[in-house]
Amino acid sequence: MQFLIAMKSVNFVILAFALMALASAYDPSPLQDYCVAVNDTKSAIFVNGRFCKDPSVATGDDFTFSGLNIPLDTNNLFGFNATLLSVDNFPGLNTLGIAIARADFAPGGVNPPHTHPRGTELVLVQKGTFYAGFVDSNNTLFGKILHPGDVFVIPIGLIHFQVNIGKTDGVLYVSFNSQNPGLITIANSIFGTNPPIDPYALARAFQLDVNAVKQLQAKFSSTN
Amino acid sequence: MQFLIAMKSVNFVILAFALMALASAYDPSPLQDYCVAVNDTKSAIFVNGRFCKDPSVATGDDFTFSGLNIPLDTNNLFGFNATLLSVDNFPGLNTLGIAIARADFAPGGVNPPHTHPRGTELVLVQKGTFYAGFVDSNNTLFGKILHPGDVFVIPIGLIHFQVNIGKTDGVLYVSFNSQNPGLITIANSIFGTNPPIDPYALARAFQLDVNAVKQLQAKFSSTN
Amino acid sequence: MQFLIAMKSVNFVILAFALMALASAYDPSPLQDYCVAVNDTKSAIFVNGRFCKDPSVATGDDFTFSGLNIPLDTNNLFGFNATLLSVDNFPGLNTLGIAIARADFAPGGVNPPHTHPRGTELVLVQKGTFYAGFVDSNNTLFGKILHPGDVFVIPIGLIHFQVNIGKTDGVLYVSFNSQNPGLITIANSIFGTNPPIDPYALARAFQLDVNAVKQLQAKFSSTN
Amino acid sequence: MQFLIAMKSVNFVILAFALMALASAYDPSPLQDYCVAVNDTKSAIFVNGRFCKDPSVATGDDFTFSGLNIPLDTNNLFGFNATLLSVDNFPGLNTLGIAIARADFAPGGVNPPHTHPRGTELVLVQKGTFYAGFVDSNNTLFGKILHPGDVFVIPIGLIHFQVNIGKTDGVLYVSFNSQNPGLITIANSIFGTNPPIDPYALARAFQLDVNAVKQLQAKFSSTN
Amino acid sequence: MQFLIAMKSVNFVILAFALMALASAYDPSPLQDYCVAVNDTKSAIFVNGRFCKDPSVATGDDFTFSGLNIPLDTNNLFGFNATLLSVDNFPGLNTLGIAIARADFAPGGVNPPHTHPRGTELVLVQKGTFYAGFVDSNNTLFGKILHPGDVFVIPIGLIHFQVNIGKTDGVLYVSFNSQNPGLITIANSIFGTNPPIDPYALARAFQLDVNAVKQLQAKFSSTN
Amino acid sequence: MQFLIAMKSVNFVILAFALMALASAYDPSPLQDYCVAVNDTKSAIFVNGRFCKDPSVATGDDFTFSGLNIPLDTNNLFGFNATLLSVDNFPGLNTLGIAIARADFAPGGVNPPHTHPRGTELVLVQKGTFYAGFVDSNNTLFGKILHPGDVFVIPIGLIHFQVNIGKTDGVLYVSFNSQNPGLITIANSIFGTNPPIDPYALARAFQLDVNAVKQLQAKFSSTN
Repeated sequence: MQFLIAMKSVNFVILAFALMALASAYDPSPLQDYCVAVNDTKSAIFVNGRFCKDPSVATGDDFTFSGLNIPLDTNNLFGFNATLLSVDNFPGLNTLGIAIARADFAPGGVNPPHTHPRGTELVLVQKGTFYAGFVDSNNTLFGKILHPGDVFVIPIGLIHFQVNIGKTDGVLYVSFNSQNPGLITIANSIFGTNPPIDPYALARAFQLDVNAVKQLQAKFSSTN
Repeated sequence: MQFLIAMKSVNFVILAFALMALASAYDPSPLQDYCVAVNDTKSAIFVNGRFCKDPSVATGDDFTFSGLNIPLDTNNLFGFNATLLSVDNFPGLNTLGIAIARADFAPGGVNPPHTHPRGTELVLVQKGTFYAGFVDSNNTLFGKILHPGDVFVIPIGLIHFQVNIGKTDGVLYVSFNSQNPGLITIANSIFGTNPPIDPYALARAFQLDVNAVKQLQAKFSSTN
Repeated sequence: MQFLIAMKSVNFVILAFALMALASAYDPSPLQDYCVAVNDTKSAIFVNGRFCKDPSVATGDDFTFSGLNIPLDTNNLFGFNATLLSVDNFPGLNTLGIAIARADFAPGGVNPPHTHPRGTELVLVQKGTFYAGFVDSNNTLFGKILHPGDVFVIPIGLIHFQVNIGKTDGVLYVSFNSQNPGLITIANSIFGTNPPIDPYALARAFQLDVNAVKQLQAKFSSTN
Repeated sequence: MQFLIAMKSVNFVILAFALMALASAYDPSPLQDYCVAVNDTKSAIFVNGRFCKDPSVATGDDFTFSGLNIPLDTNNLFGFNATLLSVDNFPGLNTLGIAIARADFAPGGVNPPHTHPRGTELVLVQKGTFYAGFVDSNNTLFGKILHPGDVFVIPIGLIHFQVNIGKTDGVLYVSFNSQNPGLITIANSIFGTNPPIDPYALARAFQLDVNAVKQLQAKFSSTN
Repeated sequence: MQFLIAMKSVNFVILAFALMALASAYDPSPLQDYCVAVNDTKSAIFVNGRFCKDPSVATGDDFTFSGLNIPLDTNNLFGFNATLLSVDNFPGLNTLGIAIARADFAPGGVNPPHTHPRGTELVLVQKGTFYAGFVDSNNTLFGKILHPGDVFVIPIGLIHFQVNIGKTDGVLYVSFNSQNPGLITIANSIFGTNPPIDPYALARAFQLDVNAVKQLQAKFSSTN
Repeated sequence: MQFLIAMKSVNFVILAFALMALASAYDPSPLQDYCVAVNDTKSAIFVNGRFCKDPSVATGDDFTFSGLNIPLDTNNLFGFNATLLSVDNFPGLNTLGIAIARADFAPGGVNPPHTHPRGTELVLVQKGTFYAGFVDSNNTLFGKILHPGDVFVIPIGLIHFQVNIGKTDGVLYVSFNSQNPGLITIANSIFGTNPPIDPYALARAFQLDVNAVKQLQAKFSSTN
């Protein structure tokens, strides 16, 4: 049985997702009942998706993951923390085209604008009051105030965010239709890359002066 | 804003799913940001999936559904009740390849063996203690006792079930990687069809005598 | 050249399918002309689908299988026997998204209710008179009496069956749009699992008493 | 119930396929149990695939087609005739990703080189002795002599043919993993197009003189 | 025959893409040879993808688009302009899963960071010297200086950009594996939405003060 | 950095494509950001698509290919030469579903009739005047005279060709929505196979006498 370890610092908030995230789009169909992922560590050879272990030694444990009821530490810059169960930490999801995450928010906490390049997202409010939104290709914002029991769907690849607008902690459960939906947190993927993007290009793109860009890069390189 | 109405009698338990269920397999990709479903009621003409409304009149409400926090009445033969949000009652899911359900269980309640012909299922235990299992193509049962915060994944098309083995009510949230995963409840799809399957065939298939089959058909035709 | 060996006892009827069956849904597209399956037996490592042999050593034999004209022994409890050519015994099918089976029926023989989790089925009557049917998600039975030269299509994942209602032996040829459609025989997948499903859960689900369930489990565990 | 009408002249051999053929590649998954095709004749508006009739009025007849046991007239230039059941004449196949054909051969009859742009083909020899082959992207011919009960698989999009090399009539049953696999008969698609391809281009491509090309165009335009 | 009109002002740069962009991921396969898009303007009813015109009236013109050799006006804030041929302005692409764009750059011109939610991009340098890059889910920047004849591939859904680092105008031809890849320009999709995203949420997400966010929103709302 | 070597003799024109070509249909979606192809040369074991190298050692070079600006030698029988960048020579394309080619034509040069079994093609005229066409399943020719800046789309699996009808050299850039679209050059795949197709079958199929077929086979076996 596996247990999640709640992240302890803001630097890890994004890292938690980033480590899990290599992938995009509705997954290919399975070609067998299941194909529990393994790493082929010896050869450093990979495939689209994952290698799998011998199906004759699979057990119920391979299809189970524990700990999504444990609150995560939100004592960080965003007032937000999340854990994604994708094929990277829940091997039984391999070939099955689905994943799930838990997100915790302090009052005022923000899940910053991001996209999932390989999956639609379905948000279920477990606790708290949220403002959630996504932006379509015409830059129209589709926003909604959400209460417990509300469900909100976000199309694949579109930028979206949630804010805890209530006075108490908030919890979301979030499903994806991919074993590895990926996570692109916009601020980090623009200002916190390794190596940094040329500040001139960002200055022109965001209509900022170069020094303002460099300040943002300094901030996000430290959180990356 | 839409609200779910909790089902009141055992007959409706299955019906709730059945009305929503026409479909199968990982869905085709979307060809636009979103395509909120409408019914083309005048012409009685359909397509694979659903017709959509003009995207220029979509709003945040189209992507929101409320009420999954409301317990369902489990005072029925199975001690079980469920509500599925699929494209049939949540039009914003159209082309987005995802769906979600809430399932309530009385102590000892049973979600009877069933399959989803068009989607993988991911179970999240919200409350209670469950025994859950699925059966693979070799008739191997993969079973697991589940506690709150546990997640259990069920491959597309395989027979599975859950039993509330705790002493209190139980609640599951269940995600699917299809806008319309479908539901085939085995007992009803064998013994409760309209018209009935030839009892002789079922007697031979299940190694029962014909009268035993007819009794089962009588029971399930009344719940269908 | 390979030859099929006709199954000799009832226990093997289901086994023949079960051994071949790990899989579901319309298969992903090929990424090369062909990819003839091999087992990577040394490492016990698998992929979605199958590893393939060096294409430069493929021959016409890899794409050929012989023996579907040989009648199978139907002297068993069901009066039915079948052989499925899937990627498991016909390696040339790998990545090609298709499979075929031959089914033999004694007079009165029954192919018991089952599903294929990963493929649509197309039945062609070669010999005999049959009653065939499938059940949709609304528990509507779509049945049809079939004669030689008739074709009947069964959507992916739905429960279906055939009965030889003629006075002579009958033969069906059955195509699937998957290299590994899978087979879930309902009675075995409910009453014949290893380990058995909790009889209490089945009793409640099928509205039988627990002893009746245990008797069914005893029968199907012996045929499994 | 529907009956096939055997084609009577060589001109119709190709026409039989051509009328049925608009399409390519493994089909998208269904989004409901079934979606029986209809033509929306009034509006001359089409979709990818087909519009469907109201599922509540579907019957077993929609999923059935009769007459594949009827031999076709092979008294033509090729000694060959075929009937394909695709979504165009068997509406129940819509969204189900499968099709089937019957092919009849006189002794020495030839199913001329062709491709199916949207489906893998699986050939089952019902009667007779055949030489069948396909050509891969390296121009390697994979050929095989086939006897009754033999199965031969042809990857999507590759050129293939069959010749009845026996002394009697021959019959093949051929399955496809597409509701509309399409048919490109090479000779007709090169020399029999409407309007004709520029003879100069064909002469250079086939290293023939222009008059030889024009003679071929005259022959095939009359059979088209 | 259709001609492109070069865009004349900076406001139109993004608009040109935005108007064309509703969609995401590798497209579903076609179910017929072609399906030339039409708008069903009367009913305001849509489908996943597009309705199509009667295939019997299609001509070569439907599959042709002219004008990609015409330079676009880059006299705007970004020194950049682009035209995308997607299914929205080139109806023959419908169901065919491909699109193409031309992008013009003044010296120092910047194609600002953006994603395509539904397609991989392949850049071909026609003229000029560029710095191009994309950022993966680990925030690693994959950058490259590109010269004429160089090709650079950008995985689906990842943030990417190009800068003309040469002293002359530059031209790129860009292919996509979707009929409607979509375009999410990050700056506009964050700071230029309609209605605006709550400045507080953006301030926390980008670690800016609220006034700095409001200034950015003012700039981008005017270019949107 | 990699450079293309222009082919020097007519025999190599087809070979250049043939070596790159194993595969067909819109590719399955990626399951990670990227998966740069490697050959697992030691074991002679393959997968659908390609094995990939460790993503942590990928660099911008893996996603770049140089040399598409270099004219190819067209001094051969067809007055035509082409280079395809597919996953076989541009490993970064693996799982990304896209490819590109450059084609050079002498005046009067002909790209002979061929198909791509696994991809739609989009032609962009860089230089010269062309007649391009494709033939649908009804043997209708869709042809078009193309000038620089014109784009022409060819549905997956259909026979097509281009002729340089101008007085100068011509250049096309051609995109595909597959990492390995494959190439079936009709004349070679009919008359130049190894081993040869039985001349009797070809004579009957093409309504030629056997000696004429043998002459064609002699010509094309020497160019193969």
